[in-house]
Amino acid sequence: MSEETSADRPDEAPEPALSVAVVDAETPGNIGTIARAMKNFGLADLYLVDPPELHPEGEAYGFAGAAREDVLPGAREVSLDYLVEQFHTVGFTAITNEDGTKHVRYPFVTPAELAADLRTVETSTCLVFGRERVGLTNDELARIDQVASIPASADYPVLNLGQAVTVALYELRGLAVAETQLPERTDRAEEPAIEGLHDQFADLLVAVDHPEEKRAKAGRLWRRLLGRAHPTGREVRTLRGLFRKAGQRLRED
Amino acid sequence: MSEETSADRPDEAPEPALSVAVVDAETPGNIGTIARAMKNFGLADLYLVDPPELHPEGEAYGFAGAAREDVLPGAREVSLDYLVEQFHTVGFTAITNEDGTKHVRYPFVTPAELAADLRTVETSTCLVFGRERVGLTNDELARIDQVASIPASADYPVLNLGQAVTVALYELRGLAVAETQLPERTDRAEEPAIEGLHDQFADLLVAVDHPEEKRAKAGRLWRRLLGRAHPTGREVRTLRGLFRKAGQRLRED
Repeated sequence: MSEETSADRPDEAPEPALSVAVVDAETPGNIGTIARAMKNFGLADLYLVDPPELHPEGEAYGFAGAAREDVLPGAREVSLDYLVEQFHTVGFTAITNEDGTKHVRYPFVTPAELAADLRTVETSTCLVFGRERVGLTNDELARIDQVASIPASADYPVLNLGQAVTVALYELRGLAVAETQLPERTDRAEEPAIEGLHDQFADLLVAVDHPEEKRAKAGRLWRRLLGRAHPTGREVRTLRGLFRKAGQRLRED
Repeated sequence: MSEETSADRPDEAPEPALSVAVVDAETPGNIGTIARAMKNFGLADLYLVDPPELHPEGEAYGFAGAAREDVLPGAREVSLDYLVEQFHTVGFTAITNEDGTKHVRYPFVTPAELAADLRTVETSTCLVFGRERVGLTNDELARIDQVASIPASADYPVLNLGQAVTVALYELRGLAVAETQLPERTDRAEEPAIEGLHDQFADLLVAVDHPEEKRAKAGRLWRRLLGRAHPTGREVRTLRGLFRKAGQRLRED
């Protein structure tokens, strides 16, 4: 039974398929921004309900960066009915209901909670965002399966449409991005090399005639600093060489 | 000694002061987008190095939302020298060095790691972002204290300037936003109420003449569904009433 398989081996659960829909956007530039964020965070499928016209020379293409080559020209114009039928829909809103007496905008999840939630299932999920000024209407949200909201300042929680989509896709990137641009950071110095630097520092204290009774304390200060910094092998080798040279020169004087 | 106090009681460590600087931006609209993200995520202090002209009727103010009232008009034009002198500077770059043989763009932290790091100290930290096409130059980054990079798709990791700042400030919001707009979600149903709904469901199975040998299995299915959904009190009361009414009507037939 597939439920038991995925419960027993959650690491092998298939990745959910994620897409983005924008309902009734007014500003082509925002659609370009959204397309770019999708490409930045590993998504490809963009659906548009009642979109503005997108001219190849206009702002949508101007704001899309490299997504002008694929995500934006591949965007499909569909109806909200189509989205509700085809997808597990998640509607984003800056303003939720306050409690469970109303269900249009409550209960809600944050994007981080949504990421954790979608990890546990195999779905075709569509993240649905509304028009610039008022977002999704109550009638639209009532038809959508799940509500999500981005935590922001209580003083001014309403993000711009393109920025809201960017934050949501950033938080969900773990579901879509197989490999980031960032290298593994595996070059922390080995402990013996760090100890060698500590020895070299102690030697430098002697060479500069640091008062004998203060040397142990200075050594601890240096140990605490390096202990917080997790130096790379290169950093340790460079400083070790520098201190050795300084000690030699001091002794030559 | 202040180190020991903050180490003993990390929860009382003072919040770091966070500001944002943009070096040599070309597009006023991006500065407006950045100002808006700052207000959305609880920041106020914006520094501009070699900015474009910002007209009150132009795109910067057009993109700033409510930040046109405070963050944007309060932005200060400064030099990179000033930032380096006054702040713990963190420079953002999409492209890092690959390993510790170069130190211009390495080692780096992700925004989430930066948030955890800044929690542990009291600093005046300035998040520094570069110009649209090429970001911060190597000469600029070499003067900056720490390097940060937003994880994105290896295929297209370069975020638009305004979107990069938005993601960074979203991730650092815990350092700046005292209270979000989202209500506490404290209205999950009480266990006895949920058990009452299970009893009502069992009663409904009898009322609809669900085959006796299948009732226990259907009850488990319903229990698993509710167990995943964490229903609100309102949801449980509504369904319990509905099932009760259905059972009564069925018995009247």
